[in-house]
Amino acid sequence: MIDENLKTRIEPVFKSQKFMQHLGAEIIALETGKVSLSLNYDERWSQQNGYFHGGVVGALADNAAGAAAATTMPEGKGCLTAEYKLNLLAPAKGDKIVAEGRVIKSGRNLVIAETDVFVFDQGKRVHCALLLATLVAVS
Amino acid sequence: MIDENLKTRIEPVFKSQKFMQHLGAEIIALETGKVSLSLNYDERWSQQNGYFHGGVVGALADNAAGAAAATTMPEGKGCLTAEYKLNLLAPAKGDKIVAEGRVIKSGRNLVIAETDVFVFDQGKRVHCALLLATLVAVS
Amino acid sequence: MIDENLKTRIEPVFKSQKFMQHLGAEIIALETGKVSLSLNYDERWSQQNGYFHGGVVGALADNAAGAAAATTMPEGKGCLTAEYKLNLLAPAKGDKIVAEGRVIKSGRNLVIAETDVFVFDQGKRVHCALLLATLVAVS
Amino acid sequence: MIDENLKTRIEPVFKSQKFMQHLGAEIIALETGKVSLSLNYDERWSQQNGYFHGGVVGALADNAAGAAAATTMPEGKGCLTAEYKLNLLAPAKGDKIVAEGRVIKSGRNLVIAETDVFVFDQGKRVHCALLLATLVAVS
Repeated sequence: MIDENLKTRIEPVFKSQKFMQHLGAEIIALETGKVSLSLNYDERWSQQNGYFHGGVVGALADNAAGAAAATTMPEGKGCLTAEYKLNLLAPAKGDKIVAEGRVIKSGRNLVIAETDVFVFDQGKRVHCALLLATLVAVS
Repeated sequence: MIDENLKTRIEPVFKSQKFMQHLGAEIIALETGKVSLSLNYDERWSQQNGYFHGGVVGALADNAAGAAAATTMPEGKGCLTAEYKLNLLAPAKGDKIVAEGRVIKSGRNLVIAETDVFVFDQGKRVHCALLLATLVAVS
Repeated sequence: MIDENLKTRIEPVFKSQKFMQHLGAEIIALETGKVSLSLNYDERWSQQNGYFHGGVVGALADNAAGAAAATTMPEGKGCLTAEYKLNLLAPAKGDKIVAEGRVIKSGRNLVIAETDVFVFDQGKRVHCALLLATLVAVS
Repeated sequence: MIDENLKTRIEPVFKSQKFMQHLGAEIIALETGKVSLSLNYDERWSQQNGYFHGGVVGALADNAAGAAAATTMPEGKGCLTAEYKLNLLAPAKGDKIVAEGRVIKSGRNLVIAETDVFVFDQGKRVHCALLLATLVAVS
């Protein structure tokens, strides 16, 4: 589901992140407190075993959490990641990863968000990573 | 400082990570329990303000921790990241980032490692991120 | 819900933790992959504002995650916490805290578990903390 | 080393934490950006093997980080823990634990601090835990 009003606020910031554009990451779901990002496999994003590199998984997961957090901010305010923890649950072996970010708590100064990352391998969906992040509201 | 014996074991794994090669990351220091990686700025690695993207900072920091952990493994054993926490301390604004990984504790099954990331802006060196990781020894 | 078979395995370990007994923590739910612990307020467990101390919240949350992880272990195997991240979401102001631990992924050597902590203030239930832990299976 | 001026600001807050008083934790070092806390073993603070309970280790480590962070705040401002990650490095087997907190970065709104915890077993000093925390400055 895509909330078109929110999209006009969130997408420009996302698109202005050249690294996300370079990876080819896409917003596939967007509503208040929830953002999902999708990224197709490319050998350039791989680690030694040919799976998605943990750094790519972490980058997508962090962005999904950040975008989800941004949807809870008032007009003109944004979010910056202060810190995150990433647990790698399974090898990210597949042709696509989807990072589903959701807000746990949105406070005046801090937002806590979590992202589940799933890898799709010939249709099979595997929960490959979990990220827990703390973001700071900025003007 | 580069330990040439260790380099023959660590560098091939590092070079087999296509994402690290794509970024152009380089090993600039390598000894038992300590590995430093360097990455030059490129617009493709940037976030919305034109600084290094947090995902790139995290990927380099995680790899430095992983390589440092690998130097403490016996021949034929390697390390996989189980989880890490990344604190972003300052905007990664500059022309180069250097991730200095070091092992805190190397056990039989788990290795704990930490990485300081510094960004260089016209010679000025800023501590921009700190990563604390748990890695698993694998055959 | 209490699984009586699991209880015979999990409760003795829990009861042998003198700190948990000293706090007066109780198992209020126990099934495969899920354990809830409850702790009543006492001034001795408070911080400067009279709320539950973060250290007490963290201890209960960690134990709930550990007990949940233990329920997924084969007979004769247990779990030790390797690391955890705790996010404090709201002041733990109330007369009781309940830590609901659940297993995210149970592997051969590592178990990932998460715990939500709720504080009850005159019946009102507030989500006050979230813990994400990595545990190691031990014989 | 104890900075007596800082002590007049930090100690009252520490002493007002009834849980710290109940444990019998003591400030043994205090200067700008650095605070060390000490806690003697008592069976009440133990886990199933008779070592210091991880929850007690985490509580002391968190408080050391918080006190260190508080020393960097202007008069009338304090710090609250937003989140922390604790890595347990070795069994906390011994008669005393000492948590050495230090500030990594003190910003206007956030403070990043780290704590090393050492356990003393018949004079032998073992690095048993490492905590990395994010704190929020509050008035």
